[in-house]
Amino acid sequence: MSDIIEPRTLRGFRDSLPQAEAGRLAVQEKLTRVFRRFAFVPIDTPALEYAEILLGKGGGETDKQVYRFRDHGERDVALRFDLTVPFARFMAAHVHELYLPFKRYHMAKVWRGENTQRGRYREFIQIDFDLVGADSASADFEILTVMQASFRELGVPRFRIHVSHRALFNEFLSARGLVERYLPILRIIDKLRKIGPGEVRGQLAELCGAAAAGQILEFVTAESSDRLTLDRAGSLLPPGCPPLQRLRALWQCIEDCGLAEYFRFDPAITRGLDYYTGVIFETFLSDLPDIGSVCSGGRYNDLASLYTREKLPGVGASIGLDRLMAALEELGVAAGGPTAPDVLILLLDEGLLSVYHRQAASLREAGLAVEVYPEARKLAVQLKYAEKRAIPLAVICGLEEQARGLFTLKDLRNRRSHEGLSAAGLAETAARLLRS
Amino acid sequence: MSDIIEPRTLRGFRDSLPQAEAGRLAVQEKLTRVFRRFAFVPIDTPALEYAEILLGKGGGETDKQVYRFRDHGERDVALRFDLTVPFARFMAAHVHELYLPFKRYHMAKVWRGENTQRGRYREFIQIDFDLVGADSASADFEILTVMQASFRELGVPRFRIHVSHRALFNEFLSARGLVERYLPILRIIDKLRKIGPGEVRGQLAELCGAAAAGQILEFVTAESSDRLTLDRAGSLLPPGCPPLQRLRALWQCIEDCGLAEYFRFDPAITRGLDYYTGVIFETFLSDLPDIGSVCSGGRYNDLASLYTREKLPGVGASIGLDRLMAALEELGVAAGGPTAPDVLILLLDEGLLSVYHRQAASLREAGLAVEVYPEARKLAVQLKYAEKRAIPLAVICGLEEQARGLFTLKDLRNRRSHEGLSAAGLAETAARLLRS
Repeated sequence: MSDIIEPRTLRGFRDSLPQAEAGRLAVQEKLTRVFRRFAFVPIDTPALEYAEILLGKGGGETDKQVYRFRDHGERDVALRFDLTVPFARFMAAHVHELYLPFKRYHMAKVWRGENTQRGRYREFIQIDFDLVGADSASADFEILTVMQASFRELGVPRFRIHVSHRALFNEFLSARGLVERYLPILRIIDKLRKIGPGEVRGQLAELCGAAAAGQILEFVTAESSDRLTLDRAGSLLPPGCPPLQRLRALWQCIEDCGLAEYFRFDPAITRGLDYYTGVIFETFLSDLPDIGSVCSGGRYNDLASLYTREKLPGVGASIGLDRLMAALEELGVAAGGPTAPDVLILLLDEGLLSVYHRQAASLREAGLAVEVYPEARKLAVQLKYAEKRAIPLAVICGLEEQARGLFTLKDLRNRRSHEGLSAAGLAETAARLLRS
Repeated sequence: MSDIIEPRTLRGFRDSLPQAEAGRLAVQEKLTRVFRRFAFVPIDTPALEYAEILLGKGGGETDKQVYRFRDHGERDVALRFDLTVPFARFMAAHVHELYLPFKRYHMAKVWRGENTQRGRYREFIQIDFDLVGADSASADFEILTVMQASFRELGVPRFRIHVSHRALFNEFLSARGLVERYLPILRIIDKLRKIGPGEVRGQLAELCGAAAAGQILEFVTAESSDRLTLDRAGSLLPPGCPPLQRLRALWQCIEDCGLAEYFRFDPAITRGLDYYTGVIFETFLSDLPDIGSVCSGGRYNDLASLYTREKLPGVGASIGLDRLMAALEELGVAAGGPTAPDVLILLLDEGLLSVYHRQAASLREAGLAVEVYPEARKLAVQLKYAEKRAIPLAVICGLEEQARGLFTLKDLRNRRSHEGLSAAGLAETAARLLRS
């Protein structure tokens, strides 16, 4: 008895059962449709790479979480922990076979040995999309509009993409001689959504005095409209400041395209990563303010500097699919594809096997998802199975019906029987009942 | 200069560039449509599992190829090397939340540290589909017909699914007192396609004498029709032999459903794995006989005995996507989805950004894949990019056209210009030209 192995998974890893998996695939299909409309192309990269590639010049917090080991050839290898680093390596390796500007999307698993006590998973799916090879307002706008179109396509009722520019705050602090405290100030601002303006003011005052704290807080607080926030930023910044010009060009385009309701200029958005150099953005669901950003990103001026001397400026965003799926479920717009067939053909007599399978084939040709119950078990057992799976229709054909060339279609939702149907009539009636 | 890291991938691992990746996704989408029509449901399992789960009671050839290491918590973990073992663990863990019969498909990466000198990859995608919870001719037939429908959907012109029954040969040898040489005989038969009947006869004669060799060879050689081969097998086997009965029931169904041209009863098919207990099958492409089977599988009487005492008989098949993709390419039926947009909107003036993006949005709403060139570079540069990517149509709108509210659509395939189009006329003309 002791030789059974407990069928457990590793902590932080999960099986995806049909309902969840169909929901995930439905979301990915919808996003794929958006990416295709915007002419983004798919790529993939290996799950496993040389550790030196993935860890680059790193050594930070992320590195400790990376799954890293020696392979059969004693090579130092690691599982990818995001899709950005492999993309940088990919572009460095292939830029001359490809073309610029290059727009790719990548939906794939990544692995991080995170602390699972914080509810984090160690295997999760990321969806990244980037436009590489251009530093322009048009490129920035394109990523923003892909984000907007994605959330529309997913049926998310109310969302807002918050946008700022990484260098904007820098310019503001420079003009006030505060630039050497750039990072600690940024870290405090980053907590604004969490701890509120009062607490932020206090922490800023401690760092750089009450007057500066007031100015900083004024600068990062949104006005009643994006135009006003932009104007105020303009009044606080040196004239002709390039980050502000970029933002103004973006906002012109956002407004002209009738998309203003989906965006907010929010100077409090800072993004933690040093990596970003231009516009930065985060997406908040108005009905679920507490879950944080579900799609974030920004502009970087050099994607692949670790692997090539070729300058590759770009802009991109990343969706954490697991957090997004949880949010869609909570909002009641999760798109769980149906996992049950439309029609179950009951297997009443082994001798009629080809009758059942021929009928199944003809119903499938009519576009229906069809299952033949695989064994001649008791009628009650087969019907109970249909009920458990919520299959709407069942086809009944025993020796008696078969002798007369007829089928019975049973609507299991209301237990109504449609008897004496020909093979052709069966497909027609099934399609009609499913539409009703 | 020395601080650039060479952007290489591990040997046996590959990047998937847009063309290849779009082709792969197109194949997966087609197969997904088939699986849905047959009411198979999708699942996923972790890439990483406890080594004891994946290696089970093993210790064979496969085990040496498994990527196995100690994780952060010093757990003995491994990357999955196929989709069958994780599925067995999955069923043992979830059978009581699910239902039986259970039909799943799973398309995912697996990893094996194979010898790359034989042209093998160390990371590849498998596509598995199984029906678990029934031991019946109907279940066997369903897997066979999913295979047939899959290759039809992929547009493969000529293929043949070879079918036998694992116990058939056993019965034949038992009746002749040769059953203790079962495995070595099987191994010789397995080489029939490779080394031919003459060489097989010689090796068999050495093992069990010329008379037995002749009988065995007669048994495994296909007649001119499946019916004749079945009849001859019947004459050489004990009456009422269950494997033959199962095959006869299957063939009745195959013929009644008009599918005989896609199948062949082939007693020479043996499948190497001890695992199979019933029908076994391999799929050969008639135009590429040398590449071997592109979809194989069979019936097993106990999927998950390592992890549960619950009996789970089933039948399933597996497609090696990489070999299949290579075959589709060679056959000229590779379904590379388009990776280029339908329309490129040239960016001639930064001041017209919203004109371009509004037009892009309206063309996308008309169902077209549209790209706005992201920078106001020289016209020649933008057109060269369009040519490199084989983009069929370009929209031209400079300040002059804009003043009159008009667009020019250029068909880059024949260099013909369609001038003076309104915004609405543009979408209409573009759609018409793309259809032509």
